[in-house]
Amino acid sequence: MPERGNLLLLGTFIHCKSVQELEYIHNAAVAVDGNGKIVGIERDHQDVEQAKGALLKSLAWSASDVEIHACKPGQFFFPGFIDTHIHASQYPNAGIFGKSTLLDWLETYTFPLESSLKDLAKARRVYTACVRRTLAHGTTMASYFATIDVDATNLLADICLDLGQRAFIGRVCMDNHDISPEYYRDESTEKSLEATLKTVEHIRSIDPTFDMVSPVLTPRFAPTCSAELMTGLSVIQRDMGLPVQTHVSENKKEIELVAQLFPDSKSYTDVYDECGLLTDRTILAHAIHLSEEEASTIARRGSKVSHCPCSNSALTSGVARVRWLWDKGIDVGLGTDMSGGYSPSILEAARQAVLVSRHLAIGLGASAETTPEELERSQLMPEEVLYLGTRGGARCVGLEKRVGGFEVGMDWDAQLIGLGSVDAAGMSEDDEHGNLEVFGWEKWEDIVPKWVYTGDDRNTKKVWVKGRLVHSRA
Amino acid sequence: MPERGNLLLLGTFIHCKSVQELEYIHNAAVAVDGNGKIVGIERDHQDVEQAKGALLKSLAWSASDVEIHACKPGQFFFPGFIDTHIHASQYPNAGIFGKSTLLDWLETYTFPLESSLKDLAKARRVYTACVRRTLAHGTTMASYFATIDVDATNLLADICLDLGQRAFIGRVCMDNHDISPEYYRDESTEKSLEATLKTVEHIRSIDPTFDMVSPVLTPRFAPTCSAELMTGLSVIQRDMGLPVQTHVSENKKEIELVAQLFPDSKSYTDVYDECGLLTDRTILAHAIHLSEEEASTIARRGSKVSHCPCSNSALTSGVARVRWLWDKGIDVGLGTDMSGGYSPSILEAARQAVLVSRHLAIGLGASAETTPEELERSQLMPEEVLYLGTRGGARCVGLEKRVGGFEVGMDWDAQLIGLGSVDAAGMSEDDEHGNLEVFGWEKWEDIVPKWVYTGDDRNTKKVWVKGRLVHSRA
Repeated sequence: MPERGNLLLLGTFIHCKSVQELEYIHNAAVAVDGNGKIVGIERDHQDVEQAKGALLKSLAWSASDVEIHACKPGQFFFPGFIDTHIHASQYPNAGIFGKSTLLDWLETYTFPLESSLKDLAKARRVYTACVRRTLAHGTTMASYFATIDVDATNLLADICLDLGQRAFIGRVCMDNHDISPEYYRDESTEKSLEATLKTVEHIRSIDPTFDMVSPVLTPRFAPTCSAELMTGLSVIQRDMGLPVQTHVSENKKEIELVAQLFPDSKSYTDVYDECGLLTDRTILAHAIHLSEEEASTIARRGSKVSHCPCSNSALTSGVARVRWLWDKGIDVGLGTDMSGGYSPSILEAARQAVLVSRHLAIGLGASAETTPEELERSQLMPEEVLYLGTRGGARCVGLEKRVGGFEVGMDWDAQLIGLGSVDAAGMSEDDEHGNLEVFGWEKWEDIVPKWVYTGDDRNTKKVWVKGRLVHSRA
Repeated sequence: MPERGNLLLLGTFIHCKSVQELEYIHNAAVAVDGNGKIVGIERDHQDVEQAKGALLKSLAWSASDVEIHACKPGQFFFPGFIDTHIHASQYPNAGIFGKSTLLDWLETYTFPLESSLKDLAKARRVYTACVRRTLAHGTTMASYFATIDVDATNLLADICLDLGQRAFIGRVCMDNHDISPEYYRDESTEKSLEATLKTVEHIRSIDPTFDMVSPVLTPRFAPTCSAELMTGLSVIQRDMGLPVQTHVSENKKEIELVAQLFPDSKSYTDVYDECGLLTDRTILAHAIHLSEEEASTIARRGSKVSHCPCSNSALTSGVARVRWLWDKGIDVGLGTDMSGGYSPSILEAARQAVLVSRHLAIGLGASAETTPEELERSQLMPEEVLYLGTRGGARCVGLEKRVGGFEVGMDWDAQLIGLGSVDAAGMSEDDEHGNLEVFGWEKWEDIVPKWVYTGDDRNTKKVWVKGRLVHSRA
């Protein structure tokens, strides 16, 4: 039985055609059925009324039977963003770093906050705020780290389902008692695995086919996990076909720590590989300082990388080489990594992905051996970071057939983007568009990069997940 | 005769005490007279009512005679931001770059737009939008590049005075016919100097003491200017004591071009020095690739540097070494460099100043010779970038005795900052605060960096320049 009525979307639709290329679909109509699936697209008509008429006719739908959302001038539909790495539990700490880098930041800011979310009232408050905030930024799917607490983690799953955000929900596993703090760790390897299975069962009880909300196996990162735990999780992975998420090669001190803790492994990546955790459903966050050999291993396993530029700059971690990862055949998506990242916004992550790629080029430019072609190739363009935030992310979470673009058969996970405009006197026609304002002479090919550079949540007017309107603003 | 009535500001006041240290002044009252000058401060009382009473008494002011602005919970007053480098004429291009770096970006995007502003209706539209937008971001003083057109430049001065933004107004000088495009350049050296004097005269006619709006001598940059023009401008500078602004050492190809055009000069910096343009009233934008010798020259002359991190990343120019400039004794402020920078916001420039300093550290970290202390020192903290955006900027524009902090005798150039809060159910109590929302347990020492990392113009609730309320929002 369909969950709701049919939808008709009218106007301009923009999505990624390929890694480098955006497709601009004007005077178009998209039909979405009651299950949230795109069932028809009419494009490039003389006007939207013509597109609408053609689509209704081809589907034998009646205009009176559908809910219609039409773009106003300057508005366009864009696929919803996919956040491939975000710690919901750390939302209150966004923008709070002190002088720390990764390891002392965990001790000072992160572990105390995460631990405190065993208080379920506090967890509900933090998780509700986080999910509402990320929806407002157009995040239609997020791969979440929660905390070690089962009940609080289950609550995050409930909240995502309730508010309508597609999500992977990760109960954090950390059983290494030398590294994890005494007040915040799993009691034992067995308890860690048991607790993980409890969240799997809870999520199965609220979403039996993991259609909207799925568990994700979440060994925090190698330093806090025993080999036994990671191997145990890989057994669960194979049994149940679940996704996996963890961190890899974020910070040089972290890499040294892993080398000390796992002296028999050739590399950080190999620690996970030896435990069977590198699968084609595995998302590895950061992947900054990988060796050629590590990247080859990741590529061979079909594992994915979540690029988190806001976090990597703020914590002075380094710059992930996205083009290099792509050249190896590795799928890459964007992660906010809140609160290692300071922003809940994938648009901000996209903007920072452009900017940090320029810093990569600046670093390369300092070497006389770098060719102009290498220099240019290292830099990411706005079109490419939008790919990372949509289709690239969809590949990371294994949903590339369902979300990330506008195709018949895909789900309607989308956002309506609105721009401001400057009137003849130089006044903003509507202040609530923020900094993204146009004068009227701009081409679409300039407007979309302008959105990447200057847009924010004020430009995200409506957000749908699987056909359900989950956020709207004036 | 005072321009308006007396003001009383009540609540929490935060400003930079030193480069590294913020001062938090709670339960305080600040009195501002009708000329916009701070005439009394009462601080650290038990509550603001007590502070208010004490201040009114000490000034013999009556409560019924003053206009009162009191902080709501979570709000604080902060000095207005100073943008030491911004091209008002390029506002419509913010966020539009294509694949360009500096020199081709000028050709493709910048010169055509600037040239088109000889149409005064268009200039009025663009300049009004730019000034209103920067005021909304808390910019109380801006050092503007306009265009080569005298009438349009004069119009920018009128608009700043009318809308109440303190400003330096620069008519752009460019007389080198090999480098400047045929459709957009001064006819001759003489015409360039004459046109410059016309804008000086116009501004003198609307603001005789250059109190709010001052001309700034503006040779665009060495490649577009003859030595004769620059020397001529330096004569005007000495005669009239005017400020000067230009660009230096932004991009490696630009530096090579300067070396070709001025083969007898030892360096880019020396080109300006030889023409007499390096004064203690000179603002040099970018200053990325300076040699030790160039920095010593700039320090000796007392010239200032405008650090423009958004632009320097977006155009792949490099990273200016702020700590290194400070160590040489050079004053540094922040510039948006719109539209080389994509944002009209000095808060965004401050955030990016933090982040690019981390990229400087990442680069240094790649060398085995870097000590941990050098690594740590290269990075800027939120407190330091707020100094750049306020007192540092004030030193660059020579107004450090009048603006940039809250001291008796200074002008009331300030902004009221408001935060959002998350209620017990996890809902935002007011959406219009954007991403900056607190849960209630945060310390002030965390809130201010959180503002730097996550704030935007939605947090700038009111803006005053010299006591006049020039912007407010709900």
